[in-house]
Amino acid sequence: MVRVAVDMMGGDLGVDSNVAGIQRFVLDNHPDDVFFDLFGKITPIEAAIANIPGFPSDLCTIHDTGDRMISSEERPSIALKKGGGTSMFEAISHVALDRADVVVSSGNTGAFMALAKIIIGMISNISRPALVSVIPNIRGRSVMLDLGANTDCSATQLAQFAAMGTAVAKIILDIPNPSVALLNIGTERSKGTDTLDEAYKILENNVNINFVGFIEGTDISKGTSDVIVTDGFSGNISLKTMEGTIRYLLHLAKEEISKSLLCKIGCFLCRRMLASVRDSLDPSRHNGAPLLGLKKIAIKSHGGADAFGLANAISAAVTFARSNFIPNMTEILASLKTAP
Amino acid sequence: MVRVAVDMMGGDLGVDSNVAGIQRFVLDNHPDDVFFDLFGKITPIEAAIANIPGFPSDLCTIHDTGDRMISSEERPSIALKKGGGTSMFEAISHVALDRADVVVSSGNTGAFMALAKIIIGMISNISRPALVSVIPNIRGRSVMLDLGANTDCSATQLAQFAAMGTAVAKIILDIPNPSVALLNIGTERSKGTDTLDEAYKILENNVNINFVGFIEGTDISKGTSDVIVTDGFSGNISLKTMEGTIRYLLHLAKEEISKSLLCKIGCFLCRRMLASVRDSLDPSRHNGAPLLGLKKIAIKSHGGADAFGLANAISAAVTFARSNFIPNMTEILASLKTAP
Repeated sequence: MVRVAVDMMGGDLGVDSNVAGIQRFVLDNHPDDVFFDLFGKITPIEAAIANIPGFPSDLCTIHDTGDRMISSEERPSIALKKGGGTSMFEAISHVALDRADVVVSSGNTGAFMALAKIIIGMISNISRPALVSVIPNIRGRSVMLDLGANTDCSATQLAQFAAMGTAVAKIILDIPNPSVALLNIGTERSKGTDTLDEAYKILENNVNINFVGFIEGTDISKGTSDVIVTDGFSGNISLKTMEGTIRYLLHLAKEEISKSLLCKIGCFLCRRMLASVRDSLDPSRHNGAPLLGLKKIAIKSHGGADAFGLANAISAAVTFARSNFIPNMTEILASLKTAP
Repeated sequence: MVRVAVDMMGGDLGVDSNVAGIQRFVLDNHPDDVFFDLFGKITPIEAAIANIPGFPSDLCTIHDTGDRMISSEERPSIALKKGGGTSMFEAISHVALDRADVVVSSGNTGAFMALAKIIIGMISNISRPALVSVIPNIRGRSVMLDLGANTDCSATQLAQFAAMGTAVAKIILDIPNPSVALLNIGTERSKGTDTLDEAYKILENNVNINFVGFIEGTDISKGTSDVIVTDGFSGNISLKTMEGTIRYLLHLAKEEISKSLLCKIGCFLCRRMLASVRDSLDPSRHNGAPLLGLKKIAIKSHGGADAFGLANAISAAVTFARSNFIPNMTEILASLKTAP
């Protein structure tokens, strides 16, 4: 059985979209052993549920948090001070207290990280959580982190990300000895910041991590390494640039298609190809990034996630919960001997 | 008349490719008033020229710099100390001495920037050069900088980039009052680093810059702003992620196409669309990024540029030289009152 705590007030599209996302997950997966704890203001949640015929109310328990919620504008430091009683705080606490297995939120990333770190606590030898995602590439898939949890990262933190990324590649992608690279502005040893230089030294001296050196932005889609390590600022911008570029290309293709009848016929014949490309790269389909390094599983869903996006984040949450992820990762991290 | 100084030893593909690039530019553009000063080791340059039938030798003057060259591995500090007499150094000096209008190099970016800054000198009120490029997006084109010249940037530098980007958007894209945004991990005012917060304050107080706030990675391809300002680390990673994503999508499309005969027929009908999408985003086609802020025009060509790429970088160099760019930009910068 998996219990999922959901922050119903998080995300740009609000309660209605989150309720629809839970419905969507249940309809798509027909799980008989997944239950939901919904945290938020009870009136809009009940109203949204009433509007959806056949909503699986029997799988859900609502926990009323009244008007208490964390806005997307809130600074993490303020969320830490005044976040008690909010939907996000209570959803995280539910998991910390072992009343649920995993927490999912589309709310404020910085606040989610700060609260999860304090309420759930960190795995030993990991100083700060990192957002991780599995990115498709020409050769398959790779693990990329941090994607936005930490705007500034020390060399030690980058080395910790390398260890956590290795664990994720082993557990989720089933790669026995994942290669790990540091994202930089060039592949030459002399390139980049002092922090990257220091991280390079730490990683090349860790015989338990399969470190392959620096890669650059073009290497992400090439699949040059199984694990891509970067700070949360560059990682976030890189990931979102990828999303934007994909949307732009599909837009260009659509515009060109509309210009000629021959092309319309051609594209009708190619529709499966276009749909396959679109789907394999659709950010909603890949929604749900674990906040890595915590003692429990916390899944960050995209702020702009729609019902389909939230359903996929819940799906990721359930996959992680079922993979016995935290004990596995803790064991792998111990074997990699990541010094703090 | 435009005189272009070319660092023939720069770039991963070497002298042969650079010689072919000059030939390609001349064949494509039939310029009657563009001349070249080639800096590098004379033997391989002459050998490469001898191998290309009809090379426009009458437009070129070779300046022998013997075995002196800067490798792509060299640190900028070493290039500054020991770079004298190298092909890159001499090509830059030629422009500084007004013997050519513009310098083009596919060599080591850090060294090129450091040498150009010292040899050519900076426009007043601009502390460091930035690499700039024009990026296509859904609504048209925008100017993005810095793309890799400065891995760490202060708030003041970011504000200077905003002013220089405004000037480029006015001169090159002919936009009267270009909107300017800072690239961040979210659009909310509270997001990002302390440096970005400070840059935000400087820019919102400059009434001469049309500052519109923070944008995120997905906004680059949306064309949310005419000018995108970021530090050279994130900018480089973002640009290269874009390149990599485009290559990945074209790869996916090719793979899917080969799977079915119907799709092959469809894609034959769509071939102009696919070619148009590919071409409009081909990094080689957009090769040639000016190093902005110098008293002369210096164009950085991609390290991996082939002959087609170098031809496009030369084309960009000639366009900038003909646009009376430096006097125009200096005048616009003065009107924008960028305090150091």
